[in-house]
Amino acid sequence: MIQIRPIVFALGLMLCIIASAMVLPAVVDLADGHDGWRVFLAASLFTFFVGGLMVLACYEDRVTRLGVREGFLLTTLSWIVIASLAAIPFYGLGLSYTDAFFETMSGLTTTGSSVITGLDKLPRGILLWRSLLCAIGGLGIIVMAIIMMPFLRVGGMQLFQMESSDKSEKILPRAFELMTATALVYGGLIVVCAAVYVLLGMSLFDAICHALSTLSTAGFSTHDESFGFFRSPAILWAGTIFMALGAMPFVVFIKAIRGDPATLWQDVQVRGFVNFLIAVSLILAVWVSLTTGRPFFEALTNAAFNVTSIVTTSGFASEDYQKWGSFAVGLFLLLTFVGGCSGSTAGAIKIYRLQVTGILARSHFVHLISPNRVVTLVYNGRRLPDDVPFSVVAFLAIYMTTVGVFTVILSAMGLDLVTAVSASAQALSNVGPGLGDIIGPAGNYAGLPAAAKWALAFEMMLGRLELFTVLVLFRPEFWRS
Amino acid sequence: MIQIRPIVFALGLMLCIIASAMVLPAVVDLADGHDGWRVFLAASLFTFFVGGLMVLACYEDRVTRLGVREGFLLTTLSWIVIASLAAIPFYGLGLSYTDAFFETMSGLTTTGSSVITGLDKLPRGILLWRSLLCAIGGLGIIVMAIIMMPFLRVGGMQLFQMESSDKSEKILPRAFELMTATALVYGGLIVVCAAVYVLLGMSLFDAICHALSTLSTAGFSTHDESFGFFRSPAILWAGTIFMALGAMPFVVFIKAIRGDPATLWQDVQVRGFVNFLIAVSLILAVWVSLTTGRPFFEALTNAAFNVTSIVTTSGFASEDYQKWGSFAVGLFLLLTFVGGCSGSTAGAIKIYRLQVTGILARSHFVHLISPNRVVTLVYNGRRLPDDVPFSVVAFLAIYMTTVGVFTVILSAMGLDLVTAVSASAQALSNVGPGLGDIIGPAGNYAGLPAAAKWALAFEMMLGRLELFTVLVLFRPEFWRS
Repeated sequence: MIQIRPIVFALGLMLCIIASAMVLPAVVDLADGHDGWRVFLAASLFTFFVGGLMVLACYEDRVTRLGVREGFLLTTLSWIVIASLAAIPFYGLGLSYTDAFFETMSGLTTTGSSVITGLDKLPRGILLWRSLLCAIGGLGIIVMAIIMMPFLRVGGMQLFQMESSDKSEKILPRAFELMTATALVYGGLIVVCAAVYVLLGMSLFDAICHALSTLSTAGFSTHDESFGFFRSPAILWAGTIFMALGAMPFVVFIKAIRGDPATLWQDVQVRGFVNFLIAVSLILAVWVSLTTGRPFFEALTNAAFNVTSIVTTSGFASEDYQKWGSFAVGLFLLLTFVGGCSGSTAGAIKIYRLQVTGILARSHFVHLISPNRVVTLVYNGRRLPDDVPFSVVAFLAIYMTTVGVFTVILSAMGLDLVTAVSASAQALSNVGPGLGDIIGPAGNYAGLPAAAKWALAFEMMLGRLELFTVLVLFRPEFWRS
Repeated sequence: MIQIRPIVFALGLMLCIIASAMVLPAVVDLADGHDGWRVFLAASLFTFFVGGLMVLACYEDRVTRLGVREGFLLTTLSWIVIASLAAIPFYGLGLSYTDAFFETMSGLTTTGSSVITGLDKLPRGILLWRSLLCAIGGLGIIVMAIIMMPFLRVGGMQLFQMESSDKSEKILPRAFELMTATALVYGGLIVVCAAVYVLLGMSLFDAICHALSTLSTAGFSTHDESFGFFRSPAILWAGTIFMALGAMPFVVFIKAIRGDPATLWQDVQVRGFVNFLIAVSLILAVWVSLTTGRPFFEALTNAAFNVTSIVTTSGFASEDYQKWGSFAVGLFLLLTFVGGCSGSTAGAIKIYRLQVTGILARSHFVHLISPNRVVTLVYNGRRLPDDVPFSVVAFLAIYMTTVGVFTVILSAMGLDLVTAVSASAQALSNVGPGLGDIIGPAGNYAGLPAAAKWALAFEMMLGRLELFTVLVLFRPEFWRS
């Protein structure tokens, strides 16, 4: 039997945190003399009421250990329940519930697809709420990736299990300590990022909002022009660096801070990620500079920013890169699938899965040429556990299938092929912008049919929770005792 | 050391067969009083001369056993060498060598992408040559898939190894007998198909040409309108059935003919394939009938024909299905990846790989819910050999990566995104038509830049030879002794 009480209790606690967070935009709107504070306060009280009831109803004296099934159910339900209630302020401020839910799920999954236009004229409360959703979602994802996913063995995440028996790798044995350390590193990076943005010329409010959605690799901006609004190469470079930091494994940061800074560069995943970003940015910069005649450094600034934005699954834009020609369009579609490192706020397939797949492919070539040779699969200096290759490739297969199936579903709702393919790919990868005129970097999701918004919101959650966490709930075995 | 002499000898023999085949269009053109016969005869003599020299130079008294490396090299080289020489007639008749090579590779890989327009006005020699290329390529592929691929263990094909130790499955122990039986079944089906086409109203010449490119699931027609030219539902249904037969495992046909007809329907792959075709055709027919108001049976006829055409990687069209709305466009993009059964003339990912991946994904779900349960992977009533899952998923990963990389390459050559994605996917899957106005079912590859034609010709070969057969040649280990 699945234990429901501890799940409801945990969900209630999360709702109370969300309710507290809603007070912040209320304060900002009140200070600005904007009526929106009533909406945020009412939403906060309602959410706190619901959350409090859940906590009270399911409180238990003894500590219950969650099993694997409860882990899956709690993880999936937390995103659904939180999104449902965190959408209330948007609804109260005039969006349809479909749009409100889409925007909230997009924030909480750090996707950054938006149905709201005219950002520059919006009250600051709602802008802050959008960025806060990203930051909260981002923290939730890192904690989930570090603690829950390895335990659930989803998509090869057991590779990052902190085994208590493995002393050399034991950095912080207990989950609570690890969560605190993660939150401190995450919070610290957001503060540093905001400070840098202010120093480079952003207003304090813009700096805070953008820092919140930079480190969470989400991509919500306070301006319709996104980072293009600031007309500042220095801000673009700062954004590039902090997006990349948000997409790196936070466990490695913690190790680095605790006395071993070399860990950061020794990590195979970090190296692969940084080298990939540099290589692709340089190639694209050369292409843009040669074909459009723009100065190389300007081309590199924009190439690095937009490539990093898509690969880290942030989705900020400095300009409409679709105008860089068909090569850029094809490249950005491919980059949508890549993603950042494990245990970060980045989504998509992720570097370690691509690296593990590369190792598998290489070993397959050796096997083809010399069928009798035994190849040991080594990743990041360690032998790959037996079930990791399977988990990784099962993930890849389901990932590509899901993109394909949702492409067809979105097509059936009347979206043209470029919009459908890129919407499906970006939602599952939690990137944000798609391709084409409608949902491209200069476009917006407002015009899509309501059914497509629900489908994309579901796909964002699927991608965010690494597919299997959600899909496993649809298997009959899951519900058998 | 790789033995070159037996490879050159085998290539020479193949060229002599191609040279003999060139005599057929020469005879047709001569009978029609068209000058083209000189071109075919000259090409035949030249090819026979080159092939003959190779045979004479590398003839050896003792029989040399080919190793794995020689197998890879011979398979890849045979498609390159034959395409290079079989392109001569097209070149002699006025095409550029780029176009001639593209058309030939398209035929030999049974892709069916064409750069030639105005088919209805062409002399019959060239039309016959196009269909003959498909038929020869198709036979080559079945033989390769039955005999060479399991031996090379490419992409999970070892699943279909005829082990001499496995008595119950031993249908024809020796390779030569198996080749003869395959050729007889293949030839027999072509004859029956042509007879049916004639009975349903095609001219004898059209029937022969279309039968040759139906059973080879290639898709070259003698009319610009493809099967739409005949305005006959009966011919469309006949085409549907024979395309499906061409995409079924020929080994199963041989077993069925040798006394066990039930084998055909007991085969898990055949059942999956047929059920898939029926389900998708019905869904699409309902959609087309509901959205366009066409009579259901007319919609079903066209849906079944075009779905079967894409899934079997034939590429014939009865009309421009892109006009059926965005759902159809999205669906046909997805169908491009599916493919027929193993050991047939169909390309793409293929049913058994999708089935094996499905089995892997299911076992992964069980593993997630009950980490300690041991799951035995069973396919088609037998335990899956240990290295098959790896081969299959390595294949899938490289497949999707290749589609992505070639999409970017084609984009860089100036193709728009829909054209680039669909061209890349169809070429690797050996389907034929892409999507969009340029290369869609009503379009043609003539207008693409020359570089794109070479890239697509290479991709056709990559897909046809199951990727690894070609890619392994690029690994340094391959060339080390």
